[in-house]
Amino acid sequence: MTTTSAATAAEQAALAKLYRDFDTEHLVPLWTQLGDLMPAQPTSNARPHCWRWSTLAPMARRAGDLVPVGRGGERRAIALANPGLAGAPYVSPTMWAAIQYLGPHETAPEHRHSQNAFRFVIEGEGVWTVVDGDPVAMRRGDFLLTPGWCFHGHYNTTGKPMTWLDGLDIPFVRQTDSAFFEFGADQLDTAPTPHLSRSERLWAHPGLTPLAQHGPRPSSPIAAYRWEHTDRALTDQLELEDQGFPGVVEPGHAAIRFTNPTTGGDVLPTLRAEFHRLRPGVTTAATREVGSSVYQVFSGAGRIMLGDEEFRVEYGDLFVVPSWQPLTVIADDNAELDLFRFSDTPIFEALHQYRRETSSVVTR
Amino acid sequence: MTTTSAATAAEQAALAKLYRDFDTEHLVPLWTQLGDLMPAQPTSNARPHCWRWSTLAPMARRAGDLVPVGRGGERRAIALANPGLAGAPYVSPTMWAAIQYLGPHETAPEHRHSQNAFRFVIEGEGVWTVVDGDPVAMRRGDFLLTPGWCFHGHYNTTGKPMTWLDGLDIPFVRQTDSAFFEFGADQLDTAPTPHLSRSERLWAHPGLTPLAQHGPRPSSPIAAYRWEHTDRALTDQLELEDQGFPGVVEPGHAAIRFTNPTTGGDVLPTLRAEFHRLRPGVTTAATREVGSSVYQVFSGAGRIMLGDEEFRVEYGDLFVVPSWQPLTVIADDNAELDLFRFSDTPIFEALHQYRRETSSVVTR
Amino acid sequence: MTTTSAATAAEQAALAKLYRDFDTEHLVPLWTQLGDLMPAQPTSNARPHCWRWSTLAPMARRAGDLVPVGRGGERRAIALANPGLAGAPYVSPTMWAAIQYLGPHETAPEHRHSQNAFRFVIEGEGVWTVVDGDPVAMRRGDFLLTPGWCFHGHYNTTGKPMTWLDGLDIPFVRQTDSAFFEFGADQLDTAPTPHLSRSERLWAHPGLTPLAQHGPRPSSPIAAYRWEHTDRALTDQLELEDQGFPGVVEPGHAAIRFTNPTTGGDVLPTLRAEFHRLRPGVTTAATREVGSSVYQVFSGAGRIMLGDEEFRVEYGDLFVVPSWQPLTVIADDNAELDLFRFSDTPIFEALHQYRRETSSVVTR
Amino acid sequence: MTTTSAATAAEQAALAKLYRDFDTEHLVPLWTQLGDLMPAQPTSNARPHCWRWSTLAPMARRAGDLVPVGRGGERRAIALANPGLAGAPYVSPTMWAAIQYLGPHETAPEHRHSQNAFRFVIEGEGVWTVVDGDPVAMRRGDFLLTPGWCFHGHYNTTGKPMTWLDGLDIPFVRQTDSAFFEFGADQLDTAPTPHLSRSERLWAHPGLTPLAQHGPRPSSPIAAYRWEHTDRALTDQLELEDQGFPGVVEPGHAAIRFTNPTTGGDVLPTLRAEFHRLRPGVTTAATREVGSSVYQVFSGAGRIMLGDEEFRVEYGDLFVVPSWQPLTVIADDNAELDLFRFSDTPIFEALHQYRRETSSVVTR
Repeated sequence: MTTTSAATAAEQAALAKLYRDFDTEHLVPLWTQLGDLMPAQPTSNARPHCWRWSTLAPMARRAGDLVPVGRGGERRAIALANPGLAGAPYVSPTMWAAIQYLGPHETAPEHRHSQNAFRFVIEGEGVWTVVDGDPVAMRRGDFLLTPGWCFHGHYNTTGKPMTWLDGLDIPFVRQTDSAFFEFGADQLDTAPTPHLSRSERLWAHPGLTPLAQHGPRPSSPIAAYRWEHTDRALTDQLELEDQGFPGVVEPGHAAIRFTNPTTGGDVLPTLRAEFHRLRPGVTTAATREVGSSVYQVFSGAGRIMLGDEEFRVEYGDLFVVPSWQPLTVIADDNAELDLFRFSDTPIFEALHQYRRETSSVVTR
Repeated sequence: MTTTSAATAAEQAALAKLYRDFDTEHLVPLWTQLGDLMPAQPTSNARPHCWRWSTLAPMARRAGDLVPVGRGGERRAIALANPGLAGAPYVSPTMWAAIQYLGPHETAPEHRHSQNAFRFVIEGEGVWTVVDGDPVAMRRGDFLLTPGWCFHGHYNTTGKPMTWLDGLDIPFVRQTDSAFFEFGADQLDTAPTPHLSRSERLWAHPGLTPLAQHGPRPSSPIAAYRWEHTDRALTDQLELEDQGFPGVVEPGHAAIRFTNPTTGGDVLPTLRAEFHRLRPGVTTAATREVGSSVYQVFSGAGRIMLGDEEFRVEYGDLFVVPSWQPLTVIADDNAELDLFRFSDTPIFEALHQYRRETSSVVTR
Repeated sequence: MTTTSAATAAEQAALAKLYRDFDTEHLVPLWTQLGDLMPAQPTSNARPHCWRWSTLAPMARRAGDLVPVGRGGERRAIALANPGLAGAPYVSPTMWAAIQYLGPHETAPEHRHSQNAFRFVIEGEGVWTVVDGDPVAMRRGDFLLTPGWCFHGHYNTTGKPMTWLDGLDIPFVRQTDSAFFEFGADQLDTAPTPHLSRSERLWAHPGLTPLAQHGPRPSSPIAAYRWEHTDRALTDQLELEDQGFPGVVEPGHAAIRFTNPTTGGDVLPTLRAEFHRLRPGVTTAATREVGSSVYQVFSGAGRIMLGDEEFRVEYGDLFVVPSWQPLTVIADDNAELDLFRFSDTPIFEALHQYRRETSSVVTR
Repeated sequence: MTTTSAATAAEQAALAKLYRDFDTEHLVPLWTQLGDLMPAQPTSNARPHCWRWSTLAPMARRAGDLVPVGRGGERRAIALANPGLAGAPYVSPTMWAAIQYLGPHETAPEHRHSQNAFRFVIEGEGVWTVVDGDPVAMRRGDFLLTPGWCFHGHYNTTGKPMTWLDGLDIPFVRQTDSAFFEFGADQLDTAPTPHLSRSERLWAHPGLTPLAQHGPRPSSPIAAYRWEHTDRALTDQLELEDQGFPGVVEPGHAAIRFTNPTTGGDVLPTLRAEFHRLRPGVTTAATREVGSSVYQVFSGAGRIMLGDEEFRVEYGDLFVVPSWQPLTVIADDNAELDLFRFSDTPIFEALHQYRRETSSVVTR
């Protein structure tokens, strides 16, 4: 909506004056910036990007050598900063993803915050995350929750460092101005080393609810989803496919969603988490959806086509899928490709903003 | 609201005429029967009663010898008939409970109905229940579902008979006129003997949902809740109690509810199922609630105080708790008491008619 | 599942003995009564029936002359007793429908019960129903609620009697043993005669919720749905149809459902209420559904085809539609046919037992 | 988490090198910026601000004189730009608020977008908003909806301009990358001038749902909430208070929420709307909550205390309340103060991030 070509000089001057007055009065006209505000389809500032484990892991170790962990900084966490987001430590406009490193016998002090958090363990063991007083062992393949406003800290009982992935809704909470934070105990009891957390002993039995604690909760009461269950579920889906029965998402592609047993919904109010397994050589259908997601390669290797870009991905690599960017994953021919995935989809489903499109498979 | 004492003979005659005319016109006055229709609190026709396994099991075997199983009668099921319900084959006004017996190499043909059903296995193994084509092994302690309108049949692959408990909402569905029934295949494929059903391979992983099938369902997609999980969950609760952590319902009383992982709610729209374990010598708080429930002793022995009655209960015994009758359970001193329980509570919760009262413990 | 023809006399004797033993032990075999318990489709004992207003109204007046109203009998209510239900005062297996009559300056004392209740006013005015202390005027066409466990009484401030329809879930609550009842104040304050209840002043503004009371409730907080709104909504639907816009249920058939503004669902947990208007000469599609319903003719006249029966219906007549009986309504050619309707559908929807079929229209 | 004071030069160099390498690899350490990312409580960049109607209205008229309305710019809308948000046209981090101006006989062309929108009319009439083909008259005090993905345009049938308030979730949708937009018809049929929209004729009857359209919807089907109903509801609350009955939020403070009759929830998935009326001289309790809100003075005048600031507010003035800033409103002594309010609260309630605190009243 520009002024007509026949605008007189007087009209142009009046318009310039109007725009100056708008500025003075903290006003902005819609008509000069509609396309940016209301695009035809999501046009994220975030860009597709892949971070290499071969780069991340050594840098985490270097940080471990140089930077102490303790009260104030709280965590030795190194955030993936999407190249399109102007240096902000955000993997996408809504999500935070970081590599956290805890050295031998180190402790990360207790705190709590309204942000929802999870950990995914790509390798190692020997650290316990304490969630509201319940020590939760971390082992390769495990997916752990620290829902909003639960106190939590970490301690390493071994002589080896450990590195894992943290996922939170920090940018979403920051931009919507809903963040609260509190320090907890400065000292953790680092003696307990239970194999299973108390939360799992109460809740991680399939389809069984402790009668004393029944009722819906915003977040899952299961503090750790163990790799042995995830692996078994994916294996079962592929075996069912071999036997001619339904279960997989598409041919050769098994997938589970981590869910909240008190509702059947997502594990956290703002974050979805899944695990995908592709048979060797499988190509997924190209899919795009509202909202962003992050994948980490747990084992195997392959290629991804993401918007206009293509990446080769291997062990530990992380890549981000911005909103509405079509994604195709192609597993190498020699091994299964295992992928951990998390996304902000619950936000859009709750607010009726979600859309998803799946195209027929196109291989480049 | 009776007529006043000063009613004249003419008035009395007019009233008698009015009542006759009511009758002719299919009308009934409220004021002559208010107390029966709208009692001060639930006054069930159903009575507390206990059926002995030592009686039931031999009778089931006799039925096995004398009565064939097959199309028409459909099942060799012997219903517990509450003594207060005038001979109707109902354990309570809403629920059906029956002992089903399947002889060596026998088959019970496939059918489906709108009634919701479950099986609980007190002893034996070797029978598979086929639910919509999925064979589900039955073993001691297992709890199996056949939700409304799923085709199902049973086959025994062994040379030994098997006996189990069936629970359904037959009276409720009958009295509300909502019953549908269809025959399925006359012949079952009796060859498969999988250790786990396909439903379990997809759904019985703690907190994990197959992505291809996510979304809420009226009934649980888990066809069998295995004893090993139930036993583990109860054991964990008591160990947590020993360690000073929450989990049990009351001191010495562990309990789990079988739940629908797609909603966190009950396994069936009309039926709740639970498993309770009392430490030796424990007495539960006296509790009464709207709706009826049935218990079966899985192991151990004890006493129950139920309304004005008291029963000694042992292995396999079944007892029914009518609506609003207070129940106390007392475990013998020498062993844990394990109890399977089912009830019609979901009906009352869904319709906002549920009430529950727990009193302090009183031992006789 | 009868014994085979070749059963020997010994076998027959053993079987007879088994059946006697079943009886002694409060057991009933399924195979001898499967068809009654689990019919192929709902086969209600309730029968289609029509009660005439020309009969009901005079009988209510006679009861008014002969029977006092007061504590004990509580209400001068005359129940419609379905001819198929063995004399029970139930219009259907789940619902109670009664004509209540309150003479000049009479009062029906306060009580409350877990049963949900409504009133529908076919004629007259001058009575106030007091719901938890809030006096609610009753006028022709109004639909009033007294949800479960609300105290309520009635008082007539005029010199004329008044007669209306009461609907409750008494049989359902009775058969499921969930009934509670309490007396309230013996004396009502009969002075107030507000045109609108307080509940309406807070809640009966379209789409507006009082901020101080927001949040979902099991029953609607609107104590009276006034005829002027119902009439206007139906008129609007037919005018929209005239103008070529959607709104009616089928050609010439306008209908509204009375709803709970805090949830958008039914007004009461167990009862649905609707109002239907047919243009002159319109025939509805034949429909059958799980659950029972009752209609009252508010104005106009017509014919109904109900199962195998046909009734002519006129002003004030009430007819009951048992479960799964197909119903067609045909309005007379000379006037619109206005019908109030209530049903037990919320029970079946909540418990996932609902089914409905609509056939093409067939006129006899 | 800074390096220790005893860090050697070599360590400092290594750390500097690490931080450079982080930057190269699109990584950011958490420990250097924790406080900004995860504040102790919401610290919005948005600032309390008040825009004057006496300024806004003349500027809208100047824009009307100088800027045509039509395809491309789409709307002559002037956005309130929060002074703390770096020139972005956002009244808060999640919400857009703009003054829209439509000149005599002008038309704003049809489009649709995933953003949810409403209009609130402070003055004038003569414009119709067409929502999916349904013309909705706009009159003083009316609150209109155009839910996400509904086509809509505006036309002025009079010789006078009209100015109103638009509210949308543009920033939220932009920042979460969920925006879709489509053009609709270039030409609107500007002839219809119905007093009520078709949506109101179907849906704006208190507690009545058109049977043909029942079922929950994400947004309210009522396209316009009329001032006469809002005013009546507020008047009723204050009259009930005079009579000693509950209804108001706090003494002298009546309030209604505009709600979705199909769910009882908010009118739009992301936006809440309310209307508040204070008696003369009333001071509200100081309240702060997660999320932002905007108020417009509809009539009367008063003072507000907002965080550390105080504003005098009069007819048409708009002020924004950033997240967690305490607000107190004080009505002048000579007249009722009527306030329209909207907020982003549904986002936080849906995602379990909502908190609210009310303090005792403190007057300055």
